[in-house]
Amino acid sequence: MRILVSNDDGIHAPGIQILASTLALEHEVHVVAPDRERSATGHALTLHKPLRLEEVPIEGTASSRCVNGTPADCVKLALGALMVDHMPDLVVSGINRGPNLGVDVIYSGTVSAAVEGTILLGRPCVAISLASFSDLGYEKGALFALDLVRELAGRTLPRAVLLNVNVPAVEIGDIAGVRVTRLGQRRYNDAFERRVDPRGKVYYWLAGEAEDLHEAPDTDVTAIRDNCISVTPIHYDLTHAGSLPDMADWRLPVPRPVGVPVEGGRTDTRGH
Amino acid sequence: MRILVSNDDGIHAPGIQILASTLALEHEVHVVAPDRERSATGHALTLHKPLRLEEVPIEGTASSRCVNGTPADCVKLALGALMVDHMPDLVVSGINRGPNLGVDVIYSGTVSAAVEGTILLGRPCVAISLASFSDLGYEKGALFALDLVRELAGRTLPRAVLLNVNVPAVEIGDIAGVRVTRLGQRRYNDAFERRVDPRGKVYYWLAGEAEDLHEAPDTDVTAIRDNCISVTPIHYDLTHAGSLPDMADWRLPVPRPVGVPVEGGRTDTRGH
Repeated sequence: MRILVSNDDGIHAPGIQILASTLALEHEVHVVAPDRERSATGHALTLHKPLRLEEVPIEGTASSRCVNGTPADCVKLALGALMVDHMPDLVVSGINRGPNLGVDVIYSGTVSAAVEGTILLGRPCVAISLASFSDLGYEKGALFALDLVRELAGRTLPRAVLLNVNVPAVEIGDIAGVRVTRLGQRRYNDAFERRVDPRGKVYYWLAGEAEDLHEAPDTDVTAIRDNCISVTPIHYDLTHAGSLPDMADWRLPVPRPVGVPVEGGRTDTRGH
Repeated sequence: MRILVSNDDGIHAPGIQILASTLALEHEVHVVAPDRERSATGHALTLHKPLRLEEVPIEGTASSRCVNGTPADCVKLALGALMVDHMPDLVVSGINRGPNLGVDVIYSGTVSAAVEGTILLGRPCVAISLASFSDLGYEKGALFALDLVRELAGRTLPRAVLLNVNVPAVEIGDIAGVRVTRLGQRRYNDAFERRVDPRGKVYYWLAGEAEDLHEAPDTDVTAIRDNCISVTPIHYDLTHAGSLPDMADWRLPVPRPVGVPVEGGRTDTRGH
């Protein structure tokens, strides 16, 4: 297969280098990744400045370039300009330094690159993260990615679905299993540190840690806690279909200029 | 009610000023918004620099400040530090300059502020956008927000659900109705313009437009096309539960060091 690899830690991060080189053992790999760390960028796009490319060789890959943009920019640029004559079969994003569990996925640049690939290719892509902020042990994630890519090639998933993978931070021999999971409900206890700078001005640092409390046994958070790899099918169609019938009787009148009486006020729920 | 208002166009944008002043006719309104335009920032967070505040008065509001951060930063800072002693009942984000329809929501800073509010308050919040890039006609969106906030106060929605509202760019008297919708499948024909700078270096501009083709009648895209206000329930739990049973028979072996034979290879799907 032809695989586009990206990430959010930047092209110089060991996670992407080990992932790209490992996938290149069996596939044609092209890397387009940010030129520097872009963690917690969510699905940000660069609209107000031009994007520039630079070659950064990675062993075994067919091509490898960095971009002065976000993960979503990288995938858009690769699939919309750089690779239009040789489109990849798949986008694999990672291996992220640190977990992307539960609500993390909405902040994650790693996941956004895989979402963008899924949108543009119309096929399920993969985001993969190592649940540790040390740089040890990306190899086991890369080996799992090889297996997962092979399995994914023979499978279909519904429109707008992709896979979010987390690998526990244990020795490869200590991985207890692989679980298909749902996202946990992990919350952050967002603490802000208020400080005063040398000129007397107040500023704030975002601090706070994840609180993984009362997680159900079938979640990604629990899988990682049990030293298992988690594979979570996620999707980017955010419609909450279950709420549509409930909202049929909401009273949402058409706005009228102040002073004009509101008539009717029935909500139109055609199609539901 | 006490309402936190934010946006992604920045505190000086007319959309947020009209929204905040209109909501302040009936509610206690606090504004915490970016100090400049932060469109297409997705759910980005600022982790690597401190956040600073500045007062920017908006008529009728109880307080109004801007932050050198993203929309998600603003809501996190407001709910995690600035308003901990007088937490709001609701976050309303907007009124965005331009539509947030279909897949737009994953790139939208406006929506991310409402998502962040929903996460932190545990109650459904509201994102509201005007489907026009001219600055005309925010008043009708602000009047609709007043009605919607009133309706929402007496309603419950499931965990992790919020409302994404789009208002058509027509005269207030020409709004044809209000529809509860699902997200459309709008795609962008991501064109990149390749250019060469005066020093001979190549750069790319992201261009491209939305292609609203073959949209179903019950989508937000169709509602706006029919001059109706769309109200879409969206959620931030991205798990695609429908794929969980399908993946039960995937062969995902535990990775082993190269050279060590793989045993078993059954996927653990406990809990499904």
